[in-house]
Amino acid sequence: MIKIAIVGYGNLGKAVEAHLKNYPDLQCIGIFSRRDNLKTQIYPSFHYDELLNGEHDIDVCILCGSSDQDLMSQTQELSQYYNCIDSFDIHRLIPEHLDNVDKTSKRAKKTSIISVGWDPGLFSWQRLLFETITPIGTSETFWGKGVSQGHSNAILNVEGVKKAVQYTIPNTETLKKVQAGLSYDKEEKHERHCYVVADEKDHDRIKQDIITMPHYFAGTKTLVYFVSEEELKRNHHGKPHGGIVTRYGQTGDFNQTMSFNLDLEDNPSFTATVLIVCARAAFKMNKSKRFGAFTIFDLSLTDLSDKPRSTLIKDLL
Amino acid sequence: MIKIAIVGYGNLGKAVEAHLKNYPDLQCIGIFSRRDNLKTQIYPSFHYDELLNGEHDIDVCILCGSSDQDLMSQTQELSQYYNCIDSFDIHRLIPEHLDNVDKTSKRAKKTSIISVGWDPGLFSWQRLLFETITPIGTSETFWGKGVSQGHSNAILNVEGVKKAVQYTIPNTETLKKVQAGLSYDKEEKHERHCYVVADEKDHDRIKQDIITMPHYFAGTKTLVYFVSEEELKRNHHGKPHGGIVTRYGQTGDFNQTMSFNLDLEDNPSFTATVLIVCARAAFKMNKSKRFGAFTIFDLSLTDLSDKPRSTLIKDLL
Repeated sequence: MIKIAIVGYGNLGKAVEAHLKNYPDLQCIGIFSRRDNLKTQIYPSFHYDELLNGEHDIDVCILCGSSDQDLMSQTQELSQYYNCIDSFDIHRLIPEHLDNVDKTSKRAKKTSIISVGWDPGLFSWQRLLFETITPIGTSETFWGKGVSQGHSNAILNVEGVKKAVQYTIPNTETLKKVQAGLSYDKEEKHERHCYVVADEKDHDRIKQDIITMPHYFAGTKTLVYFVSEEELKRNHHGKPHGGIVTRYGQTGDFNQTMSFNLDLEDNPSFTATVLIVCARAAFKMNKSKRFGAFTIFDLSLTDLSDKPRSTLIKDLL
Repeated sequence: MIKIAIVGYGNLGKAVEAHLKNYPDLQCIGIFSRRDNLKTQIYPSFHYDELLNGEHDIDVCILCGSSDQDLMSQTQELSQYYNCIDSFDIHRLIPEHLDNVDKTSKRAKKTSIISVGWDPGLFSWQRLLFETITPIGTSETFWGKGVSQGHSNAILNVEGVKKAVQYTIPNTETLKKVQAGLSYDKEEKHERHCYVVADEKDHDRIKQDIITMPHYFAGTKTLVYFVSEEELKRNHHGKPHGGIVTRYGQTGDFNQTMSFNLDLEDNPSFTATVLIVCARAAFKMNKSKRFGAFTIFDLSLTDLSDKPRSTLIKDLL
């Protein structure tokens, strides 16, 4: 059994806690947080500082804090003692973060995998796979269907709006153009679907205010639907997300299109599962003395899986 | 420069020859075949036996023979002298083949990657990735749009048929069912679209003969289109293929659907590009002393790419 500590207890930490039981080779030791008297759902909670005195028997820490507040310092700190996984996603700082964690991990003979999730993470993996196989071609990433908090808040600022949820959705016309190698407008990659609660007398004016709002909606295909408060609560409370990585590659005169689609009913749950399987990979890589900090580009699928290599080859190759 | 030998000169060998120039770190030494006086398009040809006397300076052999005739013996033979890549696809024999090549490769301190292409190959990779991330769920593979030679020949055997091309196409209704977690009929995974040249007076009878043909079409959604000989030649001469690997995964109460789509205008060209990038990986793995026989499950993307790891992380993570 691989002994896991969850560090941080926001949406992501809670999702890791909820889903670890589906991976029978992993066992959760507890949840570590800077908050005192943290109430957790399944596993016991401990103070973060207990991670620094070595009293817990932990194989891998899954860090679930935020990139801007916690991860840059925490992963570096904890990689002095443990194998670590994080979802650090501030793109321009990844090389520096990787370098820092690499130094501490190597010194401690530990293995860390950073910037894991679906983007950065699985999407990056697919993009690199596609571009390596067909070096000549065009790649594009589409987002959604997913809720955009920023755009939902922008709608809430329109006078008369009581509640609002905004989904970003790939523009299928643009997607088809990319996949057929036709020229397309980068501004037309996405559609914005807005579900708004407001008094009926204001509908026309609110719709006009939304679709003409600069920076957010003007110039983008925007659909506005007015719904009741009950309908919004019932049908639009989830955290869906996803997207499409696609490449229109050329081999000579032939077009070869590769696409990876992700359609997630719950974003934190899926990110959690990627972190969990990477925790297993870090443990296995550490056992085979691959010390330092790694990214998803450095892993093989035999690192990620819990099954023996011979079984994978027999059943899935 | 990585020096490549192409072994075998059928559709796949010709495609590797045609596309190697798109990978600037790879250089083709020549094409090796058992045939005498082979006429090649770009690179010089040599007799296969010259591979056994060590007179050519070769880093990696890309073996392009057939699985049932050539590869089982050739990869084992050549891995005594060179790093080797093959597309061996007789599923039940892969473990034995891997084991054989592993022994010769390790003895010679060489690195081979076997059973490479898109299935076995990229499709296997995606299936394993998806199942590892969401261990609870349902996976399915759909084929096409692609020409089925066997089904085309079956149509040719119908009285009055002059020419015929049969495409296997994923049944989009069944695909939607799989991706929504609904029950579906395994017999209804594919549609069969038949393009047939025949005299008009025979059309009704031929159509009836096709759609009721046991083992091939009866019980499967089959569409028959009659076209002129000119139209068949103009629009149906390619070697398209592709398919969809999809997984309806569950994390708790949430459904998370992952899909990989391949839409290929030319099947041998695409398989060739996968073999080519694996040749690079074998060379790099050999330089870092990873000797033996490997599969696509054992590779990382940094092995496959020609770019420095720091560039990949900066540009694509």
